[in-house]
Amino acid sequence: MCLYALQQKWCKDMEMLAINDLRFDANGLIPAVVQDADTNQVLMLAYMNAESLRLTMETNETHFWSRSRQELWHKGATSGNIQKVIEVKVDCDADTLLIRVDPAGPACHTGAQTCFYRNIKEVNQ
Amino acid sequence: MCLYALQQKWCKDMEMLAINDLRFDANGLIPAVVQDADTNQVLMLAYMNAESLRLTMETNETHFWSRSRQELWHKGATSGNIQKVIEVKVDCDADTLLIRVDPAGPACHTGAQTCFYRNIKEVNQ
Repeated sequence: MCLYALQQKWCKDMEMLAINDLRFDANGLIPAVVQDADTNQVLMLAYMNAESLRLTMETNETHFWSRSRQELWHKGATSGNIQKVIEVKVDCDADTLLIRVDPAGPACHTGAQTCFYRNIKEVNQ
Repeated sequence: MCLYALQQKWCKDMEMLAINDLRFDANGLIPAVVQDADTNQVLMLAYMNAESLRLTMETNETHFWSRSRQELWHKGATSGNIQKVIEVKVDCDADTLLIRVDPAGPACHTGAQTCFYRNIKEVNQ
């Protein structure tokens, strides 16, 4: 509990949330942004259900729910490009996760380091 | 078009996608990860419809679709904490955006710099 205004930033940093407090959507899923914990590059966005989140936290390797294949998906199980979990963050309204990882290889099935390898628009500064 | 294997990484970096190629969901929305272009901190995740994306690219300031309020939402219109758009990236299957921004202030309505100020779990390295 934050008693003093000066402590509030510190308190925010220290807050922890239980899995039960998460807001999964109508399909039982929550989006998970995956970020390289070393470079801070955003690698991909995928979806987790409660089971894949539990597996992620139990094994310290990312697991997702594949919406197209309708099955659990251990990232890197076939490619070898597993993602070691460094920390799992949750946003203010508890409906999005940010997973900071140490990736063993490229995140994208195309071989690109990040799935976000294309631009829609670049704004000239 | 990438003719040579050695050019493939460069080609990937240069690829551009049109808005019409994006895969909006059944509700006409696409998730947008917002990242600070300077610090690479992930600030928030919100949703865009075609109209809010058009406004974002026209004004170079982020606009979203508020699912709770069911209305267009110009980020920072009331708080002043607008997000100047630096670039808009799209992922491999064209169903997620990554918006890199120069934020005028905190992204979160709590006053935190990022909405991801809480941890679910920290893994000891």
